[in-house]
Amino acid sequence: MKMLVKQIYENAKELDKSKIKIKGWVVTSRGNKKIQFIELNDGSSVLHLQLVLKSEKMDLNDIHFKTGSSIKAEGILNYTPKAEQSVELIVDKISLLAQSDEDFPIQTKKTTLEFLRTIPHLRHRSNTIKAVMLVRSSISFFIHEYFQKNDFSLVAAPIITSNDGEGAGETFIVDSEDKEPFFGNNVKATLGVTGQLHAEAYALGLQKVYTFAPTFRAENSNTKKHAAEFWMVEPEVAFFTLKELIQMSEEMLKYVIKKVLEKRRDELVFLDTHIKPGLIQSLEDFLESNLEIIEYRKVIEILEKNKVFFEEQNIEFGMDLKTEHERFIAEKYAKGPVGVINYPKKLKAFYMYQNDDNETVAAFDLLVPGIGELVGGSQRENRYEKLEQRIQELNIDQKDIQWYLDLRKYGYSGSAGFGLGLERLVMYITGIDNIRDSIPFPRTPNNLKM
Amino acid sequence: MKMLVKQIYENAKELDKSKIKIKGWVVTSRGNKKIQFIELNDGSSVLHLQLVLKSEKMDLNDIHFKTGSSIKAEGILNYTPKAEQSVELIVDKISLLAQSDEDFPIQTKKTTLEFLRTIPHLRHRSNTIKAVMLVRSSISFFIHEYFQKNDFSLVAAPIITSNDGEGAGETFIVDSEDKEPFFGNNVKATLGVTGQLHAEAYALGLQKVYTFAPTFRAENSNTKKHAAEFWMVEPEVAFFTLKELIQMSEEMLKYVIKKVLEKRRDELVFLDTHIKPGLIQSLEDFLESNLEIIEYRKVIEILEKNKVFFEEQNIEFGMDLKTEHERFIAEKYAKGPVGVINYPKKLKAFYMYQNDDNETVAAFDLLVPGIGELVGGSQRENRYEKLEQRIQELNIDQKDIQWYLDLRKYGYSGSAGFGLGLERLVMYITGIDNIRDSIPFPRTPNNLKM
Repeated sequence: MKMLVKQIYENAKELDKSKIKIKGWVVTSRGNKKIQFIELNDGSSVLHLQLVLKSEKMDLNDIHFKTGSSIKAEGILNYTPKAEQSVELIVDKISLLAQSDEDFPIQTKKTTLEFLRTIPHLRHRSNTIKAVMLVRSSISFFIHEYFQKNDFSLVAAPIITSNDGEGAGETFIVDSEDKEPFFGNNVKATLGVTGQLHAEAYALGLQKVYTFAPTFRAENSNTKKHAAEFWMVEPEVAFFTLKELIQMSEEMLKYVIKKVLEKRRDELVFLDTHIKPGLIQSLEDFLESNLEIIEYRKVIEILEKNKVFFEEQNIEFGMDLKTEHERFIAEKYAKGPVGVINYPKKLKAFYMYQNDDNETVAAFDLLVPGIGELVGGSQRENRYEKLEQRIQELNIDQKDIQWYLDLRKYGYSGSAGFGLGLERLVMYITGIDNIRDSIPFPRTPNNLKM
Repeated sequence: MKMLVKQIYENAKELDKSKIKIKGWVVTSRGNKKIQFIELNDGSSVLHLQLVLKSEKMDLNDIHFKTGSSIKAEGILNYTPKAEQSVELIVDKISLLAQSDEDFPIQTKKTTLEFLRTIPHLRHRSNTIKAVMLVRSSISFFIHEYFQKNDFSLVAAPIITSNDGEGAGETFIVDSEDKEPFFGNNVKATLGVTGQLHAEAYALGLQKVYTFAPTFRAENSNTKKHAAEFWMVEPEVAFFTLKELIQMSEEMLKYVIKKVLEKRRDELVFLDTHIKPGLIQSLEDFLESNLEIIEYRKVIEILEKNKVFFEEQNIEFGMDLKTEHERFIAEKYAKGPVGVINYPKKLKAFYMYQNDDNETVAAFDLLVPGIGELVGGSQRENRYEKLEQRIQELNIDQKDIQWYLDLRKYGYSGSAGFGLGLERLVMYITGIDNIRDSIPFPRTPNNLKM
């Protein structure tokens, strides 16, 4: 029967002595005139299947498969739990489907991630990028599964928008090549930096919603954490308070991590071995932990006491936490993911709920080791006057977001939501430390391949 | 316990006489000083829950909830299978969370879909758009579920691309507002019209992949079927032939429709009643049918015999089928979804596998009643020379897609895939006949709201 490598490993014992047909690509090939061993990968797993070719079954002089070539084979599966390879296929028939050129760039000799970034159309054929992309796919799906199981509706927030979102600036402009502006003369069309405001509109009516879509920032920064195009997951729930939001984010992350640990164990073992030792243990520790919540005010106290560790030592209430501070809080203080709440309002966007202290807003950032901020969210300001006042204080053009203010007129008694950067979650779960390796075709300043 | 309306209807019998807490929005409210009835919708279903307020439990003079207001209530559930309303909540406590203004535009009086398009931030609070958007969410999820269950990996094809895809032109240009081009001087950054070429790169290595992402066309056309921004699902499978691709598309569509019929029955019943009578029957008929496959050549013969029915009566081999022709084949000839294969190569994109007749390509369009083309796919040309020759014949700039040609050098023995427009599938399954009502914030020429 036709099988995938992942299925074979998962059912090796039951499949022992079965006749198996398989297609895939040659990773390595070695041997002599009597016996040859071919490692085949078929893309379903980071694991390869060992094919064993014996001279009594075929003329091994005819077998010359270069690395990267596609082949098909059939044979009898041999389950050998005590051997180094727990399973192998004793081949009866094998044939070449398409030979690969000699210059196939993914050879078994060590290639660097930097080099692989120059060939985004081929790099997923390396073990590391393959493992990351398989994990990424599973993360994406389990996010959907979590929300759908919990009665959230997926909402397609628009990509092209007349709304500049958080007023964060740094947007991409969009237009057709025609003389006339495609969307008309009185509107500025940009690529959305967030789907949140649109999600809020839908939460008012559908109650529990989430978006899962690409978002964009034209930020001219070349860091390991920033890309111009990245995917965001933005749940929004009517009637939710900040506390309920934090609970939900913890539950969601734990659901996804637990599922990925089950489904993509082999890939995580590979990444633990080759990319980040201790990866699996740290994920399992998170599953066992209770998310600690700290007030921003308390964070400042902690940082102040430890300021010798930082480049930025000017620690005071009102400061924007840098990645070094966020990582310190997660890695040294909490020793795991940690939630920070109630930030000074001047640091945060206009739509956040203003606390009674008149100084802070009901914001929430989830900080994780190795990354810093993974999730940022808040309870939203439901009071029309407070929201309008904040918009005016910040000199945001009210006309553009009057529709958003208007939501407060029609039965809006509050909502809360967060944004989760998918690539950051991929980095956290795979241990990969550069965002360029967490997304198939990364877009950064002066870099647009394919 | 806290419940959603959907959960209450699904478990009404078991919940009979239970104490229930609920939050939601007032749809209607009527009654007198003795008894009042409030229809509450909480966004989990197109169905409302009837709240019954009695004067012996509370002072009904205090109850003035305008349509659209958010409220919370608790009471005892009353399961009444023989009554018009199979379930109602006998309220013990009720309170207003946020009053709605008088001018809330979604009142029970009939509003038109045209009017609703002017208020995309509120229109999902109407029954029709709510039903469509709930179905859309479920369709999206079951597409993911089908592919993931079948060992496909989700691949994030890029949105911003230097690749103009099918050479179809009509792309949107993207840049930052800085003086220097964000992606550099030697590259044209556009919004992707397809993720297919990138998916093919990933199929070479991961074998079974799919994309699910927004795509864009700057086409200046105002029809019921076209939007400038729409979501595409594009599976691509290495080693697949056209025949296997067609089987997979049928299986996938049937999986999704079957699941949606179960999960979103109430919404489909609503749409069947109010939007498109016979909707559910036609979906169930499709599930029971075997997809018929017709050669393009045969389609021309059929159309020729029936040309009196068409505006375009110039029927000949080589013609591009118009929607009227596609719909005739689906609605009158096949009386259901139908696959058309082996189109003349001049009608199709450069990457399709060239059949031995030297005249047609291994293309496949799935035509459905009411819509026309729902799915378009093909087996891809795996022969480097044939592909290069076709690129040159069509005057496509080879430099831009050399990377795509290069895939053929490294063990590419063929793949096949299709593109499914999500909004068209939403239209097919919901019976909604304008694409503007199938996506939350539609983008069309001169129309960019929010």
